[in-house]
Amino acid sequence: MRPLILISNDDGYEAKGINELVDMVRDMGDVLVCAPDGARSGMSCAFTATLPLTLTLCKKEPGVEVWSCSGTPTDCVKMALAELCPRKPDLVLGGINHGDNGSVNTHYSGTMGVVMEGCMKYIPSVAYSLCDHRADADFEPLRPYVRQMTQWVLKNGLQEGVCLNVNFPDPTNLPREAKDTLPKQGETERVYKGVRVCRMAKGTWGSEVTKCHHPRGYDYWWMVGHYQNDEPEAEDTDNWALSHGYVAITPTRIDVTAYEAMEKLKKLEELRS
Amino acid sequence: MRPLILISNDDGYEAKGINELVDMVRDMGDVLVCAPDGARSGMSCAFTATLPLTLTLCKKEPGVEVWSCSGTPTDCVKMALAELCPRKPDLVLGGINHGDNGSVNTHYSGTMGVVMEGCMKYIPSVAYSLCDHRADADFEPLRPYVRQMTQWVLKNGLQEGVCLNVNFPDPTNLPREAKDTLPKQGETERVYKGVRVCRMAKGTWGSEVTKCHHPRGYDYWWMVGHYQNDEPEAEDTDNWALSHGYVAITPTRIDVTAYEAMEKLKKLEELRS
Repeated sequence: MRPLILISNDDGYEAKGINELVDMVRDMGDVLVCAPDGARSGMSCAFTATLPLTLTLCKKEPGVEVWSCSGTPTDCVKMALAELCPRKPDLVLGGINHGDNGSVNTHYSGTMGVVMEGCMKYIPSVAYSLCDHRADADFEPLRPYVRQMTQWVLKNGLQEGVCLNVNFPDPTNLPREAKDTLPKQGETERVYKGVRVCRMAKGTWGSEVTKCHHPRGYDYWWMVGHYQNDEPEAEDTDNWALSHGYVAITPTRIDVTAYEAMEKLKKLEELRS
Repeated sequence: MRPLILISNDDGYEAKGINELVDMVRDMGDVLVCAPDGARSGMSCAFTATLPLTLTLCKKEPGVEVWSCSGTPTDCVKMALAELCPRKPDLVLGGINHGDNGSVNTHYSGTMGVVMEGCMKYIPSVAYSLCDHRADADFEPLRPYVRQMTQWVLKNGLQEGVCLNVNFPDPTNLPREAKDTLPKQGETERVYKGVRVCRMAKGTWGSEVTKCHHPRGYDYWWMVGHYQNDEPEAEDTDNWALSHGYVAITPTRIDVTAYEAMEKLKKLEELRS
């Protein structure tokens, strides 16, 4: 039986990134897409508790079936697993996201919501993101990496409780330093310097809201913000890899227990009512 | 200067749990509530990327100010920090949630969204949840624990990058085994057996969607589901503590890197385009 690959995202089923991803992996198995019917950026692992959900079949061709869902990225995976998949998928893929999901963005990302959900269902799961928000971003430089990584995970699986958060630098916006040191590959210049397995950088979003004034006389706010890497010198982080021209693979845990903090907290076990 | 305590939740500013929490801690500092204007269960760390947000002042009395916000729990914290707090809060509290946030629920929980956001802003942050969904749940048995834990964290702080996920068993629904072994305290029976510092249990949600048929002829689905503890014998987990009558404190990390998985993945650093 061909592997079953379940794909979702947070930019919606019509986004360029998810359609490119389908194209990159469709020869590796049967592809089932269940993705939001529109943009669901910043949805994290949210699911829809209070509204009914609907599913729409958008495309069915040999080896590829595409459904849209009215819910969140997490809803899409839950719905696909419960109602659409003919068997348990061998792999869940998220993306390719239009935008950076490194560092703390992993907590807000709907693309990561997809693969966290796959991972919580004990399915090997990989999120792909390109650090370029544009709707017409060029995903072609990612193809060889996405194909090889997907094949590797299909073959080797992943440790239980661990999914991958893979981020690609924007090849049109590499820092000069990275460009100057790009390795040559035969006659053609390689786009990325290589691949690094990283940890999440410590970082902070600031200036996150902008106040506006409505013609009717009240204030309202837009969520925007600027990201700051709080440890720019740390060479083992995803932020560092991305800003130096490397593809960043951050293995990500479902078990978020802070084991190293337990000892000190044992003091709280003495509390009584 | 009195400590500033920022409080939010995912059940909305009118919920009993958040109002009880304010009452339990208001003598410890100045309390600022910024909470959703209605229920936002299952919102995880979602923020609102595509809609404008509004704020409404609901109550202002000495030491306690209450605002409602049209956004998610995460939005509430971001908005409060950017627009409402007169100074950086000393503490962020989430809850008291009407419902269990143990095990994988931590990933879906808007209450945890609140404290993850506080923690990402380097503020000590604690989420309180009661394993009772009812709108009129009895929070009174939690009072001595909430007060002592809050005081402890105000005094001692928390390790950077670590927040607390505190869950209380439903005292009206303790298993017989737990009830039988409750320690006596003077003449009155103590409600909980004690406090345990735990790790997240491995667990899975199943049967998560229920299909219904709309009178207009189409299908729709509700997200429901049944939780299963996948390691019921593990005595060091939050699920075990809760089902045995203990208050469960799970220290929770912002850095979700799976360090233990990195070595094997180094193989992927050999990939080339």
